[in-house]
Amino acid sequence: MLDSNSNSLPDDLCDALQWRYAVKKMDPSKSVSEDKIAALLDAIQYAPTSSGTQPFKVFVITNDDLRTKIRAASFDQSQVTDASHLLVFAAWDNYTDARIDSVVDHHAEERPGTREMLEGYYGNLKGMYLPRTAETNFEHAARQAYIALGFGMLTAAQMRVDTTPMEGFDPSAVDDILGLGDKNLRSVCMLAVGTRDAANDWLAPMKKVRKTDDVLFERID
Amino acid sequence: MLDSNSNSLPDDLCDALQWRYAVKKMDPSKSVSEDKIAALLDAIQYAPTSSGTQPFKVFVITNDDLRTKIRAASFDQSQVTDASHLLVFAAWDNYTDARIDSVVDHHAEERPGTREMLEGYYGNLKGMYLPRTAETNFEHAARQAYIALGFGMLTAAQMRVDTTPMEGFDPSAVDDILGLGDKNLRSVCMLAVGTRDAANDWLAPMKKVRKTDDVLFERID
Repeated sequence: MLDSNSNSLPDDLCDALQWRYAVKKMDPSKSVSEDKIAALLDAIQYAPTSSGTQPFKVFVITNDDLRTKIRAASFDQSQVTDASHLLVFAAWDNYTDARIDSVVDHHAEERPGTREMLEGYYGNLKGMYLPRTAETNFEHAARQAYIALGFGMLTAAQMRVDTTPMEGFDPSAVDDILGLGDKNLRSVCMLAVGTRDAANDWLAPMKKVRKTDDVLFERID
Repeated sequence: MLDSNSNSLPDDLCDALQWRYAVKKMDPSKSVSEDKIAALLDAIQYAPTSSGTQPFKVFVITNDDLRTKIRAASFDQSQVTDASHLLVFAAWDNYTDARIDSVVDHHAEERPGTREMLEGYYGNLKGMYLPRTAETNFEHAARQAYIALGFGMLTAAQMRVDTTPMEGFDPSAVDDILGLGDKNLRSVCMLAVGTRDAANDWLAPMKKVRKTDDVLFERID
């Protein structure tokens, strides 16, 4: 039960969790500052991922032509073009030897003297991942992107930046629009980042609804 | 580039992103207070999910016998028993008519006068979800759990509570241990919540490594 008086949540975080909602109508005249976008991207960049692979890429789109095309592939949802920035999260379409090697190389460079340990660790990872189907590996990569999506949304809320997480789009169409196939990426979710137009948003005045503790959690002591 | 001087991230959030890491060695003598666990669960409860379905359940386990069994199914990773609380995120194994109806009923109860609109909206959702395979729906539900996992980890870090996100376990074995099959749930990830034993953790002194901006992001203006 979210209540700033009853637990240890920092007040600002508690307020942010109540303040945020999935905005349905953005005000296209109110842009989010590049400073805040940079801060939001920092949170995405520093989100943890499985074995530090960060198996995705994030496209930060302000281009109007592209966003018009993406909106057409997103059931014409207005946030795609009314937001100030559209983030498209695209996960690796598979794990490969070369992609995991590039993680090893980067870590070894940043952590001198660890190459042997890293090669052992990621060698085991390859043993698990490489025999799996591309679809299984893609789904695993997609889940990692969702951790970063979570970090991004919660950080945005704490900066009082509005967001709309979006899955209601045709992934293949968005992949084509952004040329993701050539990059071995597949779009998994989008995050519209902008400013709520509360007066014209049917969802804005609605009470926030969440499952109660007894439905969502089970304690086993 | 994470730097509290260069952008708009609240200082505490910037510090939290640097402070957190996936703890490899927890100190079993240092429990996390129930207040902080409640706050962490609040963040999980208030994380956004697709159409507000919250298609997962979180088991909060302190029971030693159960954790010993889960540790055996988790490559003997010590955090499972050395953490103070083990959270197991379990996603719905499918979307069904009845489960979506229960979401409609709950929302209609909390938002009087919206039942007709809700039935229309979730009717469309059923039209999309119910014809899909159970595996596709499970993967979609799992992704939603990962958003909540992200909210939980970032919130914990801001309270200076340590966590270890864990995927290195045998999901079927954990499902059996917790009897999840009977509940139409499947385990997807775990979060050990405890207190780092930094002196005995090989990862604690390591530099944090993240992909650089130019690798992780692509701006399209």
